[in-house]
Amino acid sequence: MTGTQRIGIVGGTGYAGAELLRLLSHHPQAEITVVTSRGEAGTPVASAYPQLDGLTDLVFEAPSVETLSRCDVVFFATPHAAAMHDVPALLAAGVRVIDLSADFRLRDPALWARWYNAEHVAPELIERAVYGLPELTGRAAIANADLVACPGCYPTAVLLGFMPLLKAGIVDTERLIADAKTGVSGAGKSLKPGFLYAEMADSFKAYGVAGHRHLPEIEQMLGQMSADKPIGLTFVPHLVPMIRGIHATLYGQLTSNEHDLQALYENAYADEPFVSVLAAGQTPETRHVRATNQCRIAVHRPQDGAQAVVLSTIDNLVKGAAGQAVQNFNLMIGIDETTALTQIAPIP
Amino acid sequence: MTGTQRIGIVGGTGYAGAELLRLLSHHPQAEITVVTSRGEAGTPVASAYPQLDGLTDLVFEAPSVETLSRCDVVFFATPHAAAMHDVPALLAAGVRVIDLSADFRLRDPALWARWYNAEHVAPELIERAVYGLPELTGRAAIANADLVACPGCYPTAVLLGFMPLLKAGIVDTERLIADAKTGVSGAGKSLKPGFLYAEMADSFKAYGVAGHRHLPEIEQMLGQMSADKPIGLTFVPHLVPMIRGIHATLYGQLTSNEHDLQALYENAYADEPFVSVLAAGQTPETRHVRATNQCRIAVHRPQDGAQAVVLSTIDNLVKGAAGQAVQNFNLMIGIDETTALTQIAPIP
Amino acid sequence: MTGTQRIGIVGGTGYAGAELLRLLSHHPQAEITVVTSRGEAGTPVASAYPQLDGLTDLVFEAPSVETLSRCDVVFFATPHAAAMHDVPALLAAGVRVIDLSADFRLRDPALWARWYNAEHVAPELIERAVYGLPELTGRAAIANADLVACPGCYPTAVLLGFMPLLKAGIVDTERLIADAKTGVSGAGKSLKPGFLYAEMADSFKAYGVAGHRHLPEIEQMLGQMSADKPIGLTFVPHLVPMIRGIHATLYGQLTSNEHDLQALYENAYADEPFVSVLAAGQTPETRHVRATNQCRIAVHRPQDGAQAVVLSTIDNLVKGAAGQAVQNFNLMIGIDETTALTQIAPIP
Amino acid sequence: MTGTQRIGIVGGTGYAGAELLRLLSHHPQAEITVVTSRGEAGTPVASAYPQLDGLTDLVFEAPSVETLSRCDVVFFATPHAAAMHDVPALLAAGVRVIDLSADFRLRDPALWARWYNAEHVAPELIERAVYGLPELTGRAAIANADLVACPGCYPTAVLLGFMPLLKAGIVDTERLIADAKTGVSGAGKSLKPGFLYAEMADSFKAYGVAGHRHLPEIEQMLGQMSADKPIGLTFVPHLVPMIRGIHATLYGQLTSNEHDLQALYENAYADEPFVSVLAAGQTPETRHVRATNQCRIAVHRPQDGAQAVVLSTIDNLVKGAAGQAVQNFNLMIGIDETTALTQIAPIP
Repeated sequence: MTGTQRIGIVGGTGYAGAELLRLLSHHPQAEITVVTSRGEAGTPVASAYPQLDGLTDLVFEAPSVETLSRCDVVFFATPHAAAMHDVPALLAAGVRVIDLSADFRLRDPALWARWYNAEHVAPELIERAVYGLPELTGRAAIANADLVACPGCYPTAVLLGFMPLLKAGIVDTERLIADAKTGVSGAGKSLKPGFLYAEMADSFKAYGVAGHRHLPEIEQMLGQMSADKPIGLTFVPHLVPMIRGIHATLYGQLTSNEHDLQALYENAYADEPFVSVLAAGQTPETRHVRATNQCRIAVHRPQDGAQAVVLSTIDNLVKGAAGQAVQNFNLMIGIDETTALTQIAPIP
Repeated sequence: MTGTQRIGIVGGTGYAGAELLRLLSHHPQAEITVVTSRGEAGTPVASAYPQLDGLTDLVFEAPSVETLSRCDVVFFATPHAAAMHDVPALLAAGVRVIDLSADFRLRDPALWARWYNAEHVAPELIERAVYGLPELTGRAAIANADLVACPGCYPTAVLLGFMPLLKAGIVDTERLIADAKTGVSGAGKSLKPGFLYAEMADSFKAYGVAGHRHLPEIEQMLGQMSADKPIGLTFVPHLVPMIRGIHATLYGQLTSNEHDLQALYENAYADEPFVSVLAAGQTPETRHVRATNQCRIAVHRPQDGAQAVVLSTIDNLVKGAAGQAVQNFNLMIGIDETTALTQIAPIP
Repeated sequence: MTGTQRIGIVGGTGYAGAELLRLLSHHPQAEITVVTSRGEAGTPVASAYPQLDGLTDLVFEAPSVETLSRCDVVFFATPHAAAMHDVPALLAAGVRVIDLSADFRLRDPALWARWYNAEHVAPELIERAVYGLPELTGRAAIANADLVACPGCYPTAVLLGFMPLLKAGIVDTERLIADAKTGVSGAGKSLKPGFLYAEMADSFKAYGVAGHRHLPEIEQMLGQMSADKPIGLTFVPHLVPMIRGIHATLYGQLTSNEHDLQALYENAYADEPFVSVLAAGQTPETRHVRATNQCRIAVHRPQDGAQAVVLSTIDNLVKGAAGQAVQNFNLMIGIDETTALTQIAPIP
Repeated sequence: MTGTQRIGIVGGTGYAGAELLRLLSHHPQAEITVVTSRGEAGTPVASAYPQLDGLTDLVFEAPSVETLSRCDVVFFATPHAAAMHDVPALLAAGVRVIDLSADFRLRDPALWARWYNAEHVAPELIERAVYGLPELTGRAAIANADLVACPGCYPTAVLLGFMPLLKAGIVDTERLIADAKTGVSGAGKSLKPGFLYAEMADSFKAYGVAGHRHLPEIEQMLGQMSADKPIGLTFVPHLVPMIRGIHATLYGQLTSNEHDLQALYENAYADEPFVSVLAAGQTPETRHVRATNQCRIAVHRPQDGAQAVVLSTIDNLVKGAAGQAVQNFNLMIGIDETTALTQIAPIP
């Protein structure tokens, strides 16, 4: 176990950055040293985040490799196609990197280029990156990594929901459906009319039906967890008038009738500190994971038919972003995985 | 075409009753004569509905066949297992009945008994009842009916969404999925903790996964529209923190690759005044049908694959209840189907 | 009474513009002829407003005096400092103008310049403009006007709430307080971070405490209705996480103990079609005026003390903007004031 | 400093009870020993509170003095008129009591009887009770108390907001106005139609204008902090469509022009860990105190006039209830006042 780590946060003004600040402010082995923001350089962090008033004297700095090299661990909470420019130099300087963006998630740089409309500038690092979903990837790989690619928010909810079924090999992997719903913070602070309160409140819609960037990421990891069976996934994301939360409703055609799905899920996650399987017949609510790193899952088989229905809920900004990043950080520095992640959801 | 109709509304204090009052108050050929409420008998209607202040002098009356027999047409906006008790006498008295409840929707009284936990007391009238979804049932049958069973809210959205696919016979009818989302007014005014603002706001959940009462109704009508092919439907309803609106996301495995789904849908609904097919690639929002009788539908085929995805939106209280009832009323009395149903959604 | 009017709407893509389209689409004597939008010229109106799908073939045009001169009446639903540039030419061309913006509300151009940070370019027209609050201004003045300055949303709620007290001369006019709350559509479609759903939902705040642009407008009209007594008003606006609605809570120190406030208010508004005074002891809710042109008011005197408390509610986009503009339009063309303004609030 | 305390929570199924469980679950010197609920006796606590899943094995017990006497400290999170029945016996048994209800807040039992429609059954204990607002009452009194009466939610926000003005003696104490707004959790879990999501969302209203139970409590404490000057307070509460949060907008007529209000407030709260005074010109938002024990206050003087405007925000369930109770608990057992109360508001 290592001592206190000097932490850098790149992209400190977005929602994931704010969550990193919230979670790491009380982390016993993290000392936030640098928070960068291109637009807010020179501004006190607490003036952008009144909720941190009195807790930090940090001032946003312009991002630079030089400054970030003073850190032991750097979190990237940036839009895609930013981290990949600085990560090579930071790794070379001995800094460990936890990337919350999409830059190192896809194994295939050509696939990445197609979905993100840009050439990957550090394709040689992709193989070095460990996909930071501890429940799937395993703790050892993450503990030893110096570059962790944190999963997207939808992929986290969908992969944890499908994993027991796919590992057991009892669903038709070519006809999977993920009908996913997210709170609007998933869109970040984008200044688009559609995200205005007056446009979003009291309404519901799907979006990105033709193709969402999380689709290839989910397909890649579903393939990995099913021993490379061919994967066919229909992924339809929706926008819910709520601030946080993802609810993935997953459909899988059962190929075998013999399994006790409830037992399968309970066993699969029996030792996981951040995944709870609900009692048979129950349904999870996103508020019960609000502001926490928990994933709550229920598995159903309506009318005892051939369709398995899995309901998987997370907080998109915590288990779907900053919390999972801190979970990976804990593993990387060899301390209790739940450190600074034991918040209880405020209900109501 | 007939003259002004004397109208009775049974169950005037629920949400569907309130919508009937809103829509019929300005209907040129409806004179609301009786509004009943067991609990509020003697109270002015406008005191329960401040939005009707100054528009009506009606006083809630206790429900009785005698009183209701003064009407030409009676709307039942009651919970299930109420209408079936009074409808026989009203029909015998020459009153035409539009039932918004579930009492006459299912063809099979045994099936009804199983899902509604009660014996049906008027099974002989089931065959006489016409299922009041004009786009499916056809106008003539409704025009001639004296008992119309209005569809449930979910069935309306799901049936209109699936209909072109099923009529064309190009999907696997045994593996249909309806992932449906409703605003909370769908639950009516039930005083249950789960419907309190503090419990429902800023959260999302599924419910009734094991079996929702709209499931047999949807299956029955899907069967009818597909020439009695065997139907397998997985139906998962969800609760959205919004007041009104249903968004059904429908999945159907295509059995043929030849069809232009966009053209199929546009043709199917070209002459329908209350169904709009969105341009290719668009997605409907529930707010655009808020407080209107419209159904807005989009059809997609992600990645040109074998899965058709249909997005169908309605206002659960209008096209899903009171508006559709008025649409049926217009057909029954032989006037323009859109009379009193031309409201434009207030946006934002 | 005149025949059908050719209507122009300038600034058709804002929220007030959308409401004008909603209300005028079914107006029996309005034919919408021109809808302008600098940014959307060439786009079909229905593509910006899906709720108008099938109702209009209009295409947004770039604003120009030439085009607008084809109209009988032009509504300006523009930000401030736009209408004043085109109104002189339109009036000269014989077009009547209903301005929903602030350009012609203040009598004193110097005061206008100070609050709106711009020189007024048509000060000679200010006197010609009639302040379009029919309940205060009187119908005759509006009927004869060719330039009507529609009140702001806050002023409408505050002035209607205070009017009976001030006309009766029974409150201390130098210590008036208006604690006002608005839904977020009051901010229009401004793309500012503070109006994003994720920033506004589930929270409440005041803003503009140091000075809001509606303050001088309210003070001017309070002065007018109180026979030019000195006015001292503290006006604190707040932002409510809801789409529409204004609730003004008004405090006035009573200088006389003799009045029956309930009777005072009931008498003051007995003949007003758009103002309802609630029964003693009741409190209005903004939803009951949602999407309608109604103002609902309650007057209280807690603990029979010297403080009068008035609660005044409107829909900021209807009675506070587009609806009031249509009310003025009806008066100007000599038809029933309530034409096209009889919508009932959809509840819930 | 004392050791770990055995804790009892009476009324564990309400919202304040849930917050006590959330805050005390991670308190280093609290061991929750008994949680009572008349209705849920025998049910596991975690089944009522999924957010506590895995954190507690406690089972709700029926409330009884015998059971509660096993505790060192008992929190009452009950409706009014419950605690007063059991507190005498508990005190006699040496148990210290922190009462979140209204039973011991008012000094005058006759006044209590009038506002709460019941005879007080333990009037002899009223004097022994210490009003648990540490910033007003002082720490020593609370540290030595064995019966603490925690303030109501509105009183907390209003008293902290007015205190510097009243202590300085620079406002007219007979014309104070508190225009207060609360999130709906302030109503608790009451199953009344008005608190249903569909009735409350997207709307705003005042209530209790004629007289709210927090009025005499606020008046009593305002009197105390102003050296017994006569107090005249107009208190108008409103309901905001949000889950948590109180925003009190306070108006006080200044009797002196000499004070720098900003400095007055900053000095008054310079050493308070749970009260923040915002920089001049800023306005607080309830979300920034969400789920925390903070009170954020801004003081304004619009147009440099004679009216002081104070904006005071708290979370009604934390600083307005359970958090303040824990703050008092910390003081009573002689540990750092902020123990277990350092949560950061999750934003957005």
